[in-house]
Amino acid sequence: MVEKLHTVGLFGKFQDPSVSDTVGNVRKLLEKNNLKVLLGNTTAANIEGARIIDYPEPLGELIDLAIVVGGDGTMLSAARELAKYDVPAIGVNLGRLGFLADIAIHDLESGLSSIINGNYHIERRTLLTTSVQRAGKIVFCDTSVNDSVISKGNSGRLMEFDIQVGGRFLSHFRSDGIILSTPTGSTAYSLSTGGPIIYPTLPVLCLTPICPHALSNRPIVIDQDDPIEISSMVFAETHANLALDGVIACKLCSNDIITVTKADESLSMIRFKGHNHFETLHTKLGWNQ
Amino acid sequence: MVEKLHTVGLFGKFQDPSVSDTVGNVRKLLEKNNLKVLLGNTTAANIEGARIIDYPEPLGELIDLAIVVGGDGTMLSAARELAKYDVPAIGVNLGRLGFLADIAIHDLESGLSSIINGNYHIERRTLLTTSVQRAGKIVFCDTSVNDSVISKGNSGRLMEFDIQVGGRFLSHFRSDGIILSTPTGSTAYSLSTGGPIIYPTLPVLCLTPICPHALSNRPIVIDQDDPIEISSMVFAETHANLALDGVIACKLCSNDIITVTKADESLSMIRFKGHNHFETLHTKLGWNQ
Amino acid sequence: MVEKLHTVGLFGKFQDPSVSDTVGNVRKLLEKNNLKVLLGNTTAANIEGARIIDYPEPLGELIDLAIVVGGDGTMLSAARELAKYDVPAIGVNLGRLGFLADIAIHDLESGLSSIINGNYHIERRTLLTTSVQRAGKIVFCDTSVNDSVISKGNSGRLMEFDIQVGGRFLSHFRSDGIILSTPTGSTAYSLSTGGPIIYPTLPVLCLTPICPHALSNRPIVIDQDDPIEISSMVFAETHANLALDGVIACKLCSNDIITVTKADESLSMIRFKGHNHFETLHTKLGWNQ
Amino acid sequence: MVEKLHTVGLFGKFQDPSVSDTVGNVRKLLEKNNLKVLLGNTTAANIEGARIIDYPEPLGELIDLAIVVGGDGTMLSAARELAKYDVPAIGVNLGRLGFLADIAIHDLESGLSSIINGNYHIERRTLLTTSVQRAGKIVFCDTSVNDSVISKGNSGRLMEFDIQVGGRFLSHFRSDGIILSTPTGSTAYSLSTGGPIIYPTLPVLCLTPICPHALSNRPIVIDQDDPIEISSMVFAETHANLALDGVIACKLCSNDIITVTKADESLSMIRFKGHNHFETLHTKLGWNQ
Repeated sequence: MVEKLHTVGLFGKFQDPSVSDTVGNVRKLLEKNNLKVLLGNTTAANIEGARIIDYPEPLGELIDLAIVVGGDGTMLSAARELAKYDVPAIGVNLGRLGFLADIAIHDLESGLSSIINGNYHIERRTLLTTSVQRAGKIVFCDTSVNDSVISKGNSGRLMEFDIQVGGRFLSHFRSDGIILSTPTGSTAYSLSTGGPIIYPTLPVLCLTPICPHALSNRPIVIDQDDPIEISSMVFAETHANLALDGVIACKLCSNDIITVTKADESLSMIRFKGHNHFETLHTKLGWNQ
Repeated sequence: MVEKLHTVGLFGKFQDPSVSDTVGNVRKLLEKNNLKVLLGNTTAANIEGARIIDYPEPLGELIDLAIVVGGDGTMLSAARELAKYDVPAIGVNLGRLGFLADIAIHDLESGLSSIINGNYHIERRTLLTTSVQRAGKIVFCDTSVNDSVISKGNSGRLMEFDIQVGGRFLSHFRSDGIILSTPTGSTAYSLSTGGPIIYPTLPVLCLTPICPHALSNRPIVIDQDDPIEISSMVFAETHANLALDGVIACKLCSNDIITVTKADESLSMIRFKGHNHFETLHTKLGWNQ
Repeated sequence: MVEKLHTVGLFGKFQDPSVSDTVGNVRKLLEKNNLKVLLGNTTAANIEGARIIDYPEPLGELIDLAIVVGGDGTMLSAARELAKYDVPAIGVNLGRLGFLADIAIHDLESGLSSIINGNYHIERRTLLTTSVQRAGKIVFCDTSVNDSVISKGNSGRLMEFDIQVGGRFLSHFRSDGIILSTPTGSTAYSLSTGGPIIYPTLPVLCLTPICPHALSNRPIVIDQDDPIEISSMVFAETHANLALDGVIACKLCSNDIITVTKADESLSMIRFKGHNHFETLHTKLGWNQ
Repeated sequence: MVEKLHTVGLFGKFQDPSVSDTVGNVRKLLEKNNLKVLLGNTTAANIEGARIIDYPEPLGELIDLAIVVGGDGTMLSAARELAKYDVPAIGVNLGRLGFLADIAIHDLESGLSSIINGNYHIERRTLLTTSVQRAGKIVFCDTSVNDSVISKGNSGRLMEFDIQVGGRFLSHFRSDGIILSTPTGSTAYSLSTGGPIIYPTLPVLCLTPICPHALSNRPIVIDQDDPIEISSMVFAETHANLALDGVIACKLCSNDIITVTKADESLSMIRFKGHNHFETLHTKLGWNQ
């Protein structure tokens, strides 16, 4: 729980009218309760738009808590931005699935009331740090909430690569790629290609191959403290792709070494009392329906 | 069985020394048996190389039977080239898997002897015709042996599309793409993403979604006489991909309509007496090992 | 279409009040249209109950068409009973899923009207004949609509067995059992353990292993004209089980030889105009939802 | 590492000649090194046989370390027997798979030498305690190493049940049963029905449904500190089965409440330096081959 709640950051795609209406409502409700409200940057990279109000950066240092209005994409983006300031976040669900968002749009008032009154606990979620080493230099390094995915890119053929886990050789892979997923991401891309559902607070990661050539390949759950290293990539096209949370972040060359580790920072998710993650699996994911 | 065997076409990647040695051996053995031997074009598109001897095209009209030296990629390429001439083909396996090749390199002499003596039957395999209609015009049309694959291409996000089968709406899909596979192709890409093994001569096709978003998606086996139509594509990047037999053949625009039907022609595979496809599943695919 | 419709057989679990109400309604509607109505035996084996009216057996010879009121279990039972008389059948859906039943309870009148007016076509579905040979004698032989399942029975350990298909050795299996499924049954038990959806009129069968020990095992789709033979069974308990359509039909001994073939008779399903099986997959099975 | 190694317990199926030879060899080698050797009971329940030498029970209190000769079944049985005495164990592999056994038969001398010299570390594995409550009383309670499995037993129909995890409702299940697996057991039965591979020392459990009726069911990985409770069972036959490590341990009635928790004791596995579990996955399980 946040000790003393003074300032709330509001995040969302402000150009989308349905979002801006909700952002406006949230703002009014918070200000009525004597909270200061600061507006975050448009968090969706593919929508151009000026921030409504500018504050000295970084916003993460100025706010005690973040409310993210929109779908899971908006939440993932805000979460990556906020992780290093250890600001707890909660989502107001406007999206199709809203798996990460705990406040349904029709429960807005009671949800905000719970936040203001501190009726919640904070759930810590592991994040990933993914770095790419090329010719001895780190050429890319960034954080992901759900997953880091290496894939063959624009090719009709599979790719090959080696994986080391915790300094030990795991396997040579021949597949369309591999998903390195946090427990949070276990219900995202990994699930669509045979990965298990993993309770979000567990200290593990999952490696799920994408369309593996070997019939006997299976997802494997490992210790989140074991660094994962992908190397010796072979692929048909000029480069393979590294995507973080579904966004291509880096074009990979065949001699690159990709390292994925548990991030130093973690994501603090606000969870209301009585929250049952298993129920969310049913209602939002359609698990076992 | 070929009525009177006079002329044999030889196909292979001639620049690869290991291939050209075998091609040379096959040629000598055939000529010793008074058969005329013609050399096909280098069938692997990604290897540059002049043909050793030039004949008036098309070669398919001049030969009674084709022997393909190399892996499955070479066989797929030769099969597409020969399909319209109804020339039966057999492979000499030099590749990693050689699933389509019936003659092992150490059985070369006895294999060729069986061919010369007609100790075989011909197995007909369904091929696919895939065409792309754009703004009312057919902008692409080609044949595939294993599969026609529509995929999201260079993106970290899934694509969406509709499928009609035999004029009826099948479903809206949200996935990384879809594999439309012949029975022959059921042991190729489709198998790596959850498709069943299908006996190669059955009159069916298989639709296998790639990393489907819906937990309840499953591969579906349909009548090969029902045309498949993919339309209403939505994807994040500038284009999606159409790959035939693992080679990207066409960049797709979102309004394109892709039609996949059983091809008019079929592939005639030479099968020696005693050939047991189930055994091949074990020895070459590692099925149920 | 039935040439001249005079006599309709009505099937259902007559002791269940909700069923008998619907049966009564159907009967009245049919008799109002000058059709003769005969009542079938209670088809559900596990419900005791006298038939309301007795007719000289076999009913299948006296009726032109069968209407089955209830769930899929009732339909499976009636279908097996009627198969040898080639009487077309249609279901009125009262069950949980009613995958085989084409008339929803709220469409009863229009459905019966379509039947009376002949606004339908007949879809032929393959059935299975399963026989058990013990010490040279056939000790069991019966028909199934969905599937014939051999399973380990009351044991915590797997069983082993060999399968021949069309006289050729398919494989040695180590698993909890195997499902031999018709296309109709592909959406039943087989689907729950990784089998594909198969369009119901295709001339194929599917072999789906139950919890196979080998990581590389996969379902396989074969020609329905190839007889399947299971032999050389090894299991921990006193017997293994043979179940037809979900009902244990025979206790198996380890030296038994089980043969599964396409049945001589087939099931004639009544299908209304505009019926789209793919839509049923969505609405009743929840496929790709 | 064992502080001072004085007494070693030897376990194996002594009536099997191949086992007793190896047991004899191990014994000689240990005694040559001035270690006292005590023989355990025949650990395989289904083999009758007197112990060669009798010691005052319980053996677990008298020995510093256990060597188990045989396959995984023998190891599972010895492990359950030894768990409460915290005696570290190692296997000499004579079985088909020997997934749990670290000493190959041809490495016997060097393996024993490593044990005597303390060249190993101890890996702690979570065990399960499974209890059955009937009419308010605990009628069964025992330990398992791999898994506790509830299954439908001798029936062709599925069963239904509810699961609570950590006091919260997880889901209603309709399936052939459910596997509650330790990480150690993730490569056993759970793997054959779609469960992930889990690194054996992780603090998690896996719930893998057996042939679930719902297309959208998936395995779920949970915290090992969350007790699992199964209740409200519905099944067609007179009882369902509870199996521990593949042996039916209790016949279940429909009102029984089954509780599965992390056991107080754990299994101490001896691991030689350089042991790479990932390599074992390849060589013994055939993973990704």
